[in-house]
Amino acid sequence: MTDLTVPIVTRDDVLAAAERIRGRVRRTPVLEVSPTLTLKLELLQHTGSFKPRGAFNRLLSARAAGELGDQGVVAASGGNAGLAVAYAARDLGVPAHVFVPENAPEPKVRRLRELGADVVQTGTEYAEASAAAATAATERGALLVHAYDQPEVVAGQGTLGLELTDQVDGADTVLVAVGGGGLMAGIVTALDGRARVVGVEPELCPTMHQALQAGVPVDVPVSGSAADSLGARRLGEIAFAAASSYGVLSVLVGEDAILAARRELWQRYRLVAEHGAATAYAALTAGAYKPEHDERVVVVVCGANTDPSDL
Amino acid sequence: MTDLTVPIVTRDDVLAAAERIRGRVRRTPVLEVSPTLTLKLELLQHTGSFKPRGAFNRLLSARAAGELGDQGVVAASGGNAGLAVAYAARDLGVPAHVFVPENAPEPKVRRLRELGADVVQTGTEYAEASAAAATAATERGALLVHAYDQPEVVAGQGTLGLELTDQVDGADTVLVAVGGGGLMAGIVTALDGRARVVGVEPELCPTMHQALQAGVPVDVPVSGSAADSLGARRLGEIAFAAASSYGVLSVLVGEDAILAARRELWQRYRLVAEHGAATAYAALTAGAYKPEHDERVVVVVCGANTDPSDL
Repeated sequence: MTDLTVPIVTRDDVLAAAERIRGRVRRTPVLEVSPTLTLKLELLQHTGSFKPRGAFNRLLSARAAGELGDQGVVAASGGNAGLAVAYAARDLGVPAHVFVPENAPEPKVRRLRELGADVVQTGTEYAEASAAAATAATERGALLVHAYDQPEVVAGQGTLGLELTDQVDGADTVLVAVGGGGLMAGIVTALDGRARVVGVEPELCPTMHQALQAGVPVDVPVSGSAADSLGARRLGEIAFAAASSYGVLSVLVGEDAILAARRELWQRYRLVAEHGAATAYAALTAGAYKPEHDERVVVVVCGANTDPSDL
Repeated sequence: MTDLTVPIVTRDDVLAAAERIRGRVRRTPVLEVSPTLTLKLELLQHTGSFKPRGAFNRLLSARAAGELGDQGVVAASGGNAGLAVAYAARDLGVPAHVFVPENAPEPKVRRLRELGADVVQTGTEYAEASAAAATAATERGALLVHAYDQPEVVAGQGTLGLELTDQVDGADTVLVAVGGGGLMAGIVTALDGRARVVGVEPELCPTMHQALQAGVPVDVPVSGSAADSLGARRLGEIAFAAASSYGVLSVLVGEDAILAARRELWQRYRLVAEHGAATAYAALTAGAYKPEHDERVVVVVCGANTDPSDL
């Protein structure tokens, strides 16, 4: 059994990932909005979220190990993870088979197909699509890419944290939204004590909050506006190990705070953030996290896959 | 009569403007999307366009000269210039009187009022609002802020060009949209030969194109999707002097190219650009400007005041 009290991914893994994926992902810019507040504009990443970092690192690690063949890759996600795997696979010239439930929204399926993915619609919910993906990967000898709970995926997401330390002088605190926890785990590993990390979750998707209380990842009901990107039902084991060993702070924000933060990101900065990405910013605007007077805070705005028509 | 064959604003004016407005405007980030293409994300500026740079420089210059009193400032614009003047005036604690036609769209009037401006609705078109603004400025002893054709305004916009030279190593060419020409003039003055400047206009708003052909700014009919931000009917004299003395290249793009470029900025980069801002990018995507193989191009994405619901 995995020991969840020590980190599973190390800063060296993240450094290696950065080397591996260089030139494949965008170095996203930061916007300094005050001397004590900087936004990391990861929503400008390929496919509109941070997920290609992890996808590329998983695929390129496997290719280096001779584990990425003509059968390509398999993933189960109609959201950001699926888009990222499709994008990375196309870039590397291997097929991507993306499993989604039969009732997956048509626009999501279309976007995956536009990126060249073979979309397999099966079952009525993601648990079934996920099981079918795992079976297919084994049967076909294809590479399974998890949405968050694989070491290469977490190490890839951590490259965002390395960029941050380079772009923001003397950051004290990084606020990041948590779903399955891959991005949070990657960032806290990359920072390795250089700054405090605060994991922000919707009250309606409290996977990390519940895991830290229970002392182990547990299944949690998820709902609300941010559930399409933060709606993992259980925190990843890698994320749990990282959060508990590094002492990641957990805060929750309500539905209204997320909606208000998303509107404010548009009105004040002309950024179109998905609800999950607005969640991190909401911790500040709603006062769920109150920085000290001169504390230098970075908010990771991690995705823009949203319908902007209500802004 | 002004000699329009030599620059009216100098690089020193731009350097002084940068010093003057420091801390009042955002240093907007750049997004390097390939080794030869960088986007300057000026759409993330306060009020969603580059205009606060010029407005602050005009107001602060006047304040230093004892010309900014309790009567505040007067402007005629329901668009980006009006928003910027209202924002700058509020920031400096003086009243802003913004003149717009009686038929100005309600959302624009509301946004101006949200920024604390006194909105005066008069006449049926901007020429009348503009004349009323000039009269009011004289009668009240308020400071008139032009949308583009004042030296302090142009010098302020030029601070964007200074940032560029600092942020992008070895840029060969800067593509910028032209309406009244304030931003183009400021940038080419700031660069002062360090890079080529290409002024991009909609075929339906060709004020610079016609001015360069005629050898003098001339009135031009304007229409099309970008007319709300690029629809000045005549190129400014300062812009004409800058464009002709520095040899700014003029290219035109069609309506379809602008719409496609705006969609691509969203789909590929998750940037919500107004049609006027997408115009500069359209020069590349539509092939109106064809860079050399290794030419390093910067596209200024200068505004986001648009309804994102059709993206």
